[in-house]
Amino acid sequence: MPTDFFNRHRATLEQAVSALQQRGYWSPYNESPSPRFYGEGAAEAGRAAYEARLERPFLFTPEQAGGDRWVGAEVSPYGPPLGIRYPAPDLDRLLPSMQRAAASWREAGPQVWAGVALEIVQRLNARSFEIAHAVQHTTGQAFTMAFQAGGPHAQDRALEAIACAWQQLQLIPAEARWEKPQGKHAPLVMRKTWRIVPRGIGLVIGCCTFPTWNSYPGLFANLATGNAVIVKPHPGAILPLAITVQVAREVLAEAGFAPDVVTLAAHDASDTGLARTLALRHEIGLIDFTGSSANGDWLEERARQARVLTEKSGINQIIIDSTDNLAGMVQNIALSLALYSGQMCTTPQNIYIPRDGVRTPQGQLSFVEVSQAIVQAVAHLTTDSAKAVELLGAIQNEAVLQRIELARGKGQVLLESTALVHPQFPGARVRTPLVMLARRNEAITEEYFGPISFIVPVDDTATAIALAQRIATDQGALTLSAYTTDATLRQGLQHAAADAGVALSLNLTGGVLVNQSAAFSDYHGTGANPAANCTLTDADFVAARYRVVQTREPVASTTTA
Amino acid sequence: MPTDFFNRHRATLEQAVSALQQRGYWSPYNESPSPRFYGEGAAEAGRAAYEARLERPFLFTPEQAGGDRWVGAEVSPYGPPLGIRYPAPDLDRLLPSMQRAAASWREAGPQVWAGVALEIVQRLNARSFEIAHAVQHTTGQAFTMAFQAGGPHAQDRALEAIACAWQQLQLIPAEARWEKPQGKHAPLVMRKTWRIVPRGIGLVIGCCTFPTWNSYPGLFANLATGNAVIVKPHPGAILPLAITVQVAREVLAEAGFAPDVVTLAAHDASDTGLARTLALRHEIGLIDFTGSSANGDWLEERARQARVLTEKSGINQIIIDSTDNLAGMVQNIALSLALYSGQMCTTPQNIYIPRDGVRTPQGQLSFVEVSQAIVQAVAHLTTDSAKAVELLGAIQNEAVLQRIELARGKGQVLLESTALVHPQFPGARVRTPLVMLARRNEAITEEYFGPISFIVPVDDTATAIALAQRIATDQGALTLSAYTTDATLRQGLQHAAADAGVALSLNLTGGVLVNQSAAFSDYHGTGANPAANCTLTDADFVAARYRVVQTREPVASTTTA
Repeated sequence: MPTDFFNRHRATLEQAVSALQQRGYWSPYNESPSPRFYGEGAAEAGRAAYEARLERPFLFTPEQAGGDRWVGAEVSPYGPPLGIRYPAPDLDRLLPSMQRAAASWREAGPQVWAGVALEIVQRLNARSFEIAHAVQHTTGQAFTMAFQAGGPHAQDRALEAIACAWQQLQLIPAEARWEKPQGKHAPLVMRKTWRIVPRGIGLVIGCCTFPTWNSYPGLFANLATGNAVIVKPHPGAILPLAITVQVAREVLAEAGFAPDVVTLAAHDASDTGLARTLALRHEIGLIDFTGSSANGDWLEERARQARVLTEKSGINQIIIDSTDNLAGMVQNIALSLALYSGQMCTTPQNIYIPRDGVRTPQGQLSFVEVSQAIVQAVAHLTTDSAKAVELLGAIQNEAVLQRIELARGKGQVLLESTALVHPQFPGARVRTPLVMLARRNEAITEEYFGPISFIVPVDDTATAIALAQRIATDQGALTLSAYTTDATLRQGLQHAAADAGVALSLNLTGGVLVNQSAAFSDYHGTGANPAANCTLTDADFVAARYRVVQTREPVASTTTA
Repeated sequence: MPTDFFNRHRATLEQAVSALQQRGYWSPYNESPSPRFYGEGAAEAGRAAYEARLERPFLFTPEQAGGDRWVGAEVSPYGPPLGIRYPAPDLDRLLPSMQRAAASWREAGPQVWAGVALEIVQRLNARSFEIAHAVQHTTGQAFTMAFQAGGPHAQDRALEAIACAWQQLQLIPAEARWEKPQGKHAPLVMRKTWRIVPRGIGLVIGCCTFPTWNSYPGLFANLATGNAVIVKPHPGAILPLAITVQVAREVLAEAGFAPDVVTLAAHDASDTGLARTLALRHEIGLIDFTGSSANGDWLEERARQARVLTEKSGINQIIIDSTDNLAGMVQNIALSLALYSGQMCTTPQNIYIPRDGVRTPQGQLSFVEVSQAIVQAVAHLTTDSAKAVELLGAIQNEAVLQRIELARGKGQVLLESTALVHPQFPGARVRTPLVMLARRNEAITEEYFGPISFIVPVDDTATAIALAQRIATDQGALTLSAYTTDATLRQGLQHAAADAGVALSLNLTGGVLVNQSAAFSDYHGTGANPAANCTLTDADFVAARYRVVQTREPVASTTTA
């Protein structure tokens, strides 16, 4: 049965490995929530499945080992509490049970690991609508985004991680005959075998904005390398990962494994210690973390028994030098700032514009003209509330609102952040983006996560590049965007981006936003600046998750094969 | 010119990558110091080159940046001081100079990195005799071993690291066209490029027993991924790495790079702080360390700005259950204990023998009979001083002698360690191996690095396996050797070895010793127990050394190609 899963998905896996090496566009999971791809009634069934989960306990069948307590107090950013209670983990029962479950899982080997992992992703894809509603009502993303980013795009990242692990494991032979010539004497002959040994239970710590997209790479890289996984969601976004864990447990059980290979460690916001307690447990050999720099740095510093892979905070920046498409540039930037109210780790925050203006096909536009074009484009996106909420979504939590207030004191308000009423969810927490003019000569060197951006006047583009490089190097950054028609500056930007270890997007004026990162093509994070110590997904991301242990024996002396 | 190096060695590189995936026997560097392979007069020329280095300053041409001080006080374990003085590094001048040198090196790209690295290894191979004398008179290895382990075998490990890096870098395309369909609309088209960005200056910290073999993997993995490297040798074994650095600088200069891409940080034994000072410098992004657990753990704990890869201490063990070749087993074990006076990180220390004896073709032999067979075999190896010294070599330093004294208090002496007079070097520090009977019920859980082993009586083989697993898990181990003709025990041993993350050798009775680890086939260390946090050489060992930084741009908006 486990091998059936592998054979069922083998073609997909091979395409995925090939896509990873080509890095062109590829995805097996359609991002369109159309019945043409997901079937008639899939949308309605998914909504019904989501609604059936509300206001009741979330049950695993069979139950997850340990825990008679119930936790969970998710409240939709669109208003109502979800009313779902999850089994709380009793670590002293759950982790030993996971170790028992892991014992046969680790023996199963790469084909079974890949097959089971791929089947889980396939079933998650079939539940994309249900997961989309769960993502919408925990993160605040608008529905379409919740479907795409929480469903097929997250599934792409999962498949990418499985493919990357498979690619690496395929480089290691299972056995070899080693025959060393000895001149006139008989050669030395040894039979050698190599075994992939997973590194331990993996802890995956989710965030409240992209619970699936950011957690799937670690979760599935762990499974594809034979590790058991405990998933600790953010208390504000448990449901999408609880459904994920439930699906994983079903597939594991069907494949003949104890479902405690994958477990959920839900907790209330008041129980702030669970992640750290878990992270220091000796059973935990791997930690995948998405969240704040404070928590990520703590894990890197303290969880010394584990390999810790983190995605943390950073300051993303846009440098405007010149453009051959002013309208496209302005529209693209405005969309980048507004999408999901800036609650993406890839959203730009600082926008550098030269004091003496920007060269465009319409001539040299002044600093004020370019700033105002951006401000007006953002304002224009939010004039119609009904359309705006489909772009903005809702604000995930109150801390974002407080950050808007804080940012308002950091310069001059160019575009005020205002509350919008959501036509469908009157209780939704919706705010339009705040655009600030940064105080003169003050570099913005703190992250303001949320719908907050700063337009920063600079003496010239070279100054902007140097400033952006320094901020990315010191504070971290996942994205850097720049607009220039100058070939020399383009080279300088590429040098600066390489030195700061930040992905560079040039002259985005069309349908791709700097915020967006496509699996199988775009590396997400580089591991080369403080925003992340790893990337999604490369060899370093997967090769830490297993070890190779060899046995060798002279062929002549072997008494049994 | 740099590309010439790549093309010159391309076939070797491709064979090496293939060997790495097959893991059968392969080596392009002959381990025999015969004129048939190294040419007539090579031995004499190498000796002359070594002797010409004695009693004078070691000069780099061009000079290494920084430093007017001279250091170095190596004394041969065979007697005389070497009298060589090396330029001491002035870090505040040397590291900035390295960064300047690194700037063009990092731009050169994988082909140039590989080509230059391969040319360096090729030239090192041509200097194997000179390096052999340098290794002999710093480590104390006998000449033949110094030639093999310090020359071709170390070069194999260097080539393996280059091949492993190349294999990984080949998985990353330089550029791609990303074309995402948009239904009835025109597709989104982006041009993407990826650049390999080295992680920073690599610090390679050498040891005094295998200065080249243990340092080359880190050194050459760094070069092959575009990093500059500062090599800090053990103060007792500077010369082999100084020659290596000199050769590297020559090749770099010929290829048009500043030679400070590779530098030497020599120091006197009294200057104990240099390694730690260097390790915490912000310029250092990678550290490869071979040495004590205390120093390795300190680096892992403290050098947080760098990726730290360590090989540390451990306790290697032999489990004897049964054998179909008693004489072969006893002889193989005796050679393992005697080779280089046990001064290998892979030398067995604890030998477990069941109290009720061992099943052999000669019937059940008692614990005492098997112990005595081993003791007599070791004693026999050292009866003829002239032959013995070619196996034992010399004791590298006084601490090893003190450890022999310490170990003598830990049980009953079965075979006394005695001084031998070296027929060629009367001042040589030569000792025969000490074999102890461990105190009853006392597990030997400390490392006694040197010609020291403990025979440990155990109730049965299952007890021995459990004990060995626990010691390897807690204290670390690079090797585990076992003798059994029982298929069930063989499986139990493989499970225990996998759980303890230690390489297992079964039934070694012939020409392969457990101490020996062959490049392209045997992983050295696993990274899965405290003896090492990495392995030589796998994807994890090389993938930490670089990051990938991408640029993407819409194809339509590009004004310059």
